[in-house]
Amino acid sequence: MPVRSRKRWRTFAERARRVRLLLMDVDGVLTDGHIYLQSLPDGTAEEMKAFHAHDGAGLKLARMAGLRTGVITGRDSPATTRRAREVGMEFVSQKQAEKLPAYEEILRQARVGDEEVAYIGDDLPDLPVLDRVGLAIAVGNAAPEVKRVVHLVTRRSGGDGAVREAIEAILRAQGCWHKLIGKARA
Amino acid sequence: MPVRSRKRWRTFAERARRVRLLLMDVDGVLTDGHIYLQSLPDGTAEEMKAFHAHDGAGLKLARMAGLRTGVITGRDSPATTRRAREVGMEFVSQKQAEKLPAYEEILRQARVGDEEVAYIGDDLPDLPVLDRVGLAIAVGNAAPEVKRVVHLVTRRSGGDGAVREAIEAILRAQGCWHKLIGKARA
Amino acid sequence: MPVRSRKRWRTFAERARRVRLLLMDVDGVLTDGHIYLQSLPDGTAEEMKAFHAHDGAGLKLARMAGLRTGVITGRDSPATTRRAREVGMEFVSQKQAEKLPAYEEILRQARVGDEEVAYIGDDLPDLPVLDRVGLAIAVGNAAPEVKRVVHLVTRRSGGDGAVREAIEAILRAQGCWHKLIGKARA
Amino acid sequence: MPVRSRKRWRTFAERARRVRLLLMDVDGVLTDGHIYLQSLPDGTAEEMKAFHAHDGAGLKLARMAGLRTGVITGRDSPATTRRAREVGMEFVSQKQAEKLPAYEEILRQARVGDEEVAYIGDDLPDLPVLDRVGLAIAVGNAAPEVKRVVHLVTRRSGGDGAVREAIEAILRAQGCWHKLIGKARA
Repeated sequence: MPVRSRKRWRTFAERARRVRLLLMDVDGVLTDGHIYLQSLPDGTAEEMKAFHAHDGAGLKLARMAGLRTGVITGRDSPATTRRAREVGMEFVSQKQAEKLPAYEEILRQARVGDEEVAYIGDDLPDLPVLDRVGLAIAVGNAAPEVKRVVHLVTRRSGGDGAVREAIEAILRAQGCWHKLIGKARA
Repeated sequence: MPVRSRKRWRTFAERARRVRLLLMDVDGVLTDGHIYLQSLPDGTAEEMKAFHAHDGAGLKLARMAGLRTGVITGRDSPATTRRAREVGMEFVSQKQAEKLPAYEEILRQARVGDEEVAYIGDDLPDLPVLDRVGLAIAVGNAAPEVKRVVHLVTRRSGGDGAVREAIEAILRAQGCWHKLIGKARA
Repeated sequence: MPVRSRKRWRTFAERARRVRLLLMDVDGVLTDGHIYLQSLPDGTAEEMKAFHAHDGAGLKLARMAGLRTGVITGRDSPATTRRAREVGMEFVSQKQAEKLPAYEEILRQARVGDEEVAYIGDDLPDLPVLDRVGLAIAVGNAAPEVKRVVHLVTRRSGGDGAVREAIEAILRAQGCWHKLIGKARA
Repeated sequence: MPVRSRKRWRTFAERARRVRLLLMDVDGVLTDGHIYLQSLPDGTAEEMKAFHAHDGAGLKLARMAGLRTGVITGRDSPATTRRAREVGMEFVSQKQAEKLPAYEEILRQARVGDEEVAYIGDDLPDLPVLDRVGLAIAVGNAAPEVKRVVHLVTRRSGGDGAVREAIEAILRAQGCWHKLIGKARA
């Protein structure tokens, strides 16, 4: 398995310490993958998404620690727009049939290189980005094809704290988790 | 058990290789069976359904592989209409108290025979169609009466990736799963 | 335990064979107990409920078998009104702070006696009715105080097929389950 | 572990007997932590929350027993406003980026001291309040940093009856649970 070995020769901690930008998919990562569609009286339907409060708190901690954050998703939804704003995300790229062009555009805007980016994904459309980033992460319930190519698989599933867990792992590697907890408690 | 033996003398792979059209129930198959009803200020209520992103990705892969897809359901909901369109379904038959006439109408339109159709069901109203199709599939949480008559029971439950799992099984039998994964990664 | 023994000296089957009317609570029985409140732009909130398709199919079978059905609930919601109509319920009694008066009113209208009624409950407000009916049933996730006084505890939880399971148990005792399955398949 | 030992030298029962006011977080405590955002046709999104009927029944029992109740939350939502009213809460403090000032304001209004207050939390923003109250409670799925500093961790998770369980534990310590059950049954 050449892919795996190429990916794994640096340790997780070495990779995590370089991360300045944390990007992620939405459906299946910030949510548990359910696409809720609410029928309306006029015969149309609008989407609902189920985010998690623990992920939200984690994303705010990430920001306090100086990590920049964002999403790249194939769908387009006001729910995602609102959630991204609530948790202080800088990059929100929706309606992307292909994720790689959106990824490259964000890197240009953020002026960072592949090695400084972590990406959290769960399914096949995430593969091209996961193959590029310095730190590739899969949620606990990701497709097997995704789990096979990443540096970390979270214990928690998407929408149930996987993003919080990934952030905690990165910030611990960067040595600033305990300081943040202390601040939260003060 | 004569039904079981009639059904099982061909292998799953032999049956799956003939499939050109994949039909399925909605509630309990593309969803986990929950019928969400949202009360509105005017005293009426509108339905919400919870689909899954992994099923959506699977249905798009099916289409890329040349499989035609569709639903037959007893309920009638704008949510289903929107989801069917999003995932590229060709046949959407709602409000069908009896499923067999709708099934036969779709076969006429698609110009395919029973042996070329797979159907995924979960409950008693699906039995007449499951008794007809070349490849009968039940989701993991189907009623026992349904599991007893099918050629495949998925490990996953309805609304939690059962449709994706069925599609992967069919496309593997048809020998085109790995090529599709390769394309997704490119 | 005098309550338990009073309740249990007749077998479940003997009690079930007398049932002509099946009543039940809504929240925690026809749903898993979640009270979803959707915020609206005008600052109010409207309730959503999560029913289950398997329960709906079971309630239609009950009706085909001649069982009359209904709900008694402390809350008031268009979602319940719509669901009750969809599954062919005859008695819908909402906004009942106390359940016993509503229960007695339904019995008068239905012209049946306590021994001909089954009731499915999950929590403390159901106790007065469960103490009266000929056949008292608790869902799998009912409060311990409720499970202690009933004739049957379903394996399934409320909102996940508990009502279907109770109906199947009653109709099997009445000897008409297999005939109904046969009809469904035809 | 000095924190733990300071917290634990009084027994749970001694602490619970003093409680006159029960405060709690909303997301992750009265709900399972999911932040549902429903997209609307005008491009905005509104929040939905999933409360639990068993918690609601528990909060009404608490009130019957003379306990005053309330919430302190970082978010702001009509869903919370409605639910708090439904279950008879006296104190509803929303949109509190910092929880301690809101906590102190409620204590002034209620004219009670720290020792007379119980608080149920699940995540880092709850820590400053949990460090103050006479009886600190964490839900079963709370963050490890929270579980470490409380006097009781409920078996049940937030949104799945954790608040009901906490209320039952307090009212049993105060010796009035059985009387309440008796009333419910009458």
